Amino acid sequence: MKLIKLIVKSKNGKYPILIGPNLIFNLSKIFKDNLINFNKCLFVVDRNVPKNFLSKIKKSLNKKEIYFHLIRVSEKNKNLKTSNKIIEILLDKNFSRQDSLVAIGGGITGDIGAFAASIFKRGLNFINIPTTLLSQVDSSVGGKTGVNTKHGKNLIGTFYQPKLVISDSNFLKTLPHREIVCGYGEILKHSLIANKKFFKFLDINSSDILKLKSPKLEKAIFESCKIKRDIVEKDEKEKNIRKILNFGHTFAHAFEASLGYSKKLNHGEAVILGINMALKFSLINKLLNKKDYYTVTKHLKNLNLPLDLKNYFKIKDLNKIISFMEKDKKNNSKKINLILLKKINYPTIDKFFDKSKIRTFLKKELIN
Amino acid sequence: MKLIKLIVKSKNGKYPILIGPNLIFNLSKIFKDNLINFNKCLFVVDRNVPKNFLSKIKKSLNKKEIYFHLIRVSEKNKNLKTSNKIIEILLDKNFSRQDSLVAIGGGITGDIGAFAASIFKRGLNFINIPTTLLSQVDSSVGGKTGVNTKHGKNLIGTFYQPKLVISDSNFLKTLPHREIVCGYGEILKHSLIANKKFFKFLDINSSDILKLKSPKLEKAIFESCKIKRDIVEKDEKEKNIRKILNFGHTFAHAFEASLGYSKKLNHGEAVILGINMALKFSLINKLLNKKDYYTVTKHLKNLNLPLDLKNYFKIKDLNKIISFMEKDKKNNSKKINLILLKKINYPTIDKFFDKSKIRTFLKKELIN
Repeated sequence: MKLIKLIVKSKNGKYPILIGPNLIFNLSKIFKDNLINFNKCLFVVDRNVPKNFLSKIKKSLNKKEIYFHLIRVSEKNKNLKTSNKIIEILLDKNFSRQDSLVAIGGGITGDIGAFAASIFKRGLNFINIPTTLLSQVDSSVGGKTGVNTKHGKNLIGTFYQPKLVISDSNFLKTLPHREIVCGYGEILKHSLIANKKFFKFLDINSSDILKLKSPKLEKAIFESCKIKRDIVEKDEKEKNIRKILNFGHTFAHAFEASLGYSKKLNHGEAVILGINMALKFSLINKLLNKKDYYTVTKHLKNLNLPLDLKNYFKIKDLNKIISFMEKDKKNNSKKINLILLKKINYPTIDKFFDKSKIRTFLKKELIN
Repeated sequence: MKLIKLIVKSKNGKYPILIGPNLIFNLSKIFKDNLINFNKCLFVVDRNVPKNFLSKIKKSLNKKEIYFHLIRVSEKNKNLKTSNKIIEILLDKNFSRQDSLVAIGGGITGDIGAFAASIFKRGLNFINIPTTLLSQVDSSVGGKTGVNTKHGKNLIGTFYQPKLVISDSNFLKTLPHREIVCGYGEILKHSLIANKKFFKFLDINSSDILKLKSPKLEKAIFESCKIKRDIVEKDEKEKNIRKILNFGHTFAHAFEASLGYSKKLNHGEAVILGINMALKFSLINKLLNKKDYYTVTKHLKNLNLPLDLKNYFKIKDLNKIISFMEKDKKNNSKKINLILLKKINYPTIDKFFDKSKIRTFLKKELIN
């Protein structure tokens, strides 16, 4: 087994992230090596995960009491009903706190699975096997769990650390290109807020990464997780520095919510749109220097990423977008807090804006 | 303001427990002194709390945006529906993570309120104002939150620490004597598992304590919280030593559940019954010495506490009781884990018993 290991420390212990190909087929050995022990295990699996992966898992763990629960994954189903269903299964099968729950799927599957695990008997062992690039480079690090409500995304959730994360790059080869683009958005975000050298690496190698070429793909996943880990270790509960991870996200969450979490715009695409808006807003507010603005914008355009707000929204959507931005859970005043950029590697954390100002800015984007 | 202060340390910071009379009428000052700051605050209140307390609170905080949500408190209502209703209010009023939720009521109110706070936007500031003796001496320390499911008590929940606990002894004077007896059960439990000197104090002063006489009442509350604090600080997540707090509770939870959480037997009474069963079971298993057994039993009998299983159960209830004991969330094997006593201050933590043995024991209790 060829793998890279990254250790994440949290207040409640540390856990490893394993990155590499073919990991899932060695699950029994990986569990043993990482001291994961259980009598019972529930696998919560995105129903789109190819069935041959599941049969290999069954084979690898053939002496254990294991269950599979397939879920239909969407932002609309990422709700209390879905997490309650998981908890019902755990209760019906009489799981104890020493048993385990493993999520196999993208960020939504991981968030729901981790949330259910975190509130079942005050905390069941949780193992995350992210299968999308987005979840491998982002949501698998940091211990955020959550489900959506009609008021917005992830408004119900906990901070809860997994015991182990297994990022098998084989999964990525089963995904449509659109999904890879989404994950790339978060990789790019991490480089912009924290590591100029890594941005330069991306600027040179983005095409290979988007084509899933080893070992550049694995390096991008590793560096991205490392940036997020370093931030999260400093501020586990998002009181301060961790907020910079929301670069582009206040916009992104509002975009997704305004479209009712439709498949027209998935989370990663919303994040790329949000990053583009945050860059422009940083520029017009005279925070970001022009050179960096044009460097990053050129990078975005070269990749054919979704950048144009007009492809998704009309002027009449403006009020809805602003109202969702106000409701974002990171806001704690009447003004809207945006993470912006001064230059690559230098985010601002404490900038608050009147909603009228943001409204005018977005209006221009929708008209021009 | 006359008060005693006890500081509880947890991995996520420390918080004070304030014990004394008339604290609630000085809420504004107490919040200020303890750096509790918020724009909005939701008070989740047991509807049995006398209305004059609430009007005094309103007056004391008259410049703040505060809301009151009265709940009908019972083990049956201690469920996800009740906690979801609280979360809906927080969402509708657009609470941010910097706002606060205050629970005013007994253990059930505190558990539901803290659970809702813990999963709202991954954690809202939580302040607990326990109003029963049981909650002041027990559930207000330790950061356990939870709601019941049809499978048993507190099967859904989190570990979440409050920012502040205010134990106002005035509340106790509004309670029926039955409620005071219930709280006394946990005070007694704390003395038995951890402090023989405190047990002797109780043996001399129990009558005054049950009559709510100061300052013996406040001393009993303080010592009880202190014992629990010392245990919880050593083992926040109940991996080891904290389990001794379950002395009598595996029995108690099964008794309550078997009666469908009926008012015939409330939690504190179930705990006293459970302690009595645990003492007897310790004796017949040759763990507890006879002298201590008779000392404690005499104490229990002198106080006219509810001790006789036959008053609540018939032989036909046995299977149900055993099945609930098996489902207790502290169990992690096919045998049933019971915390028992070797002598006062010396609990056992690692004793597992076949259910047939426990069944035979309880059967005798129901026949004799």
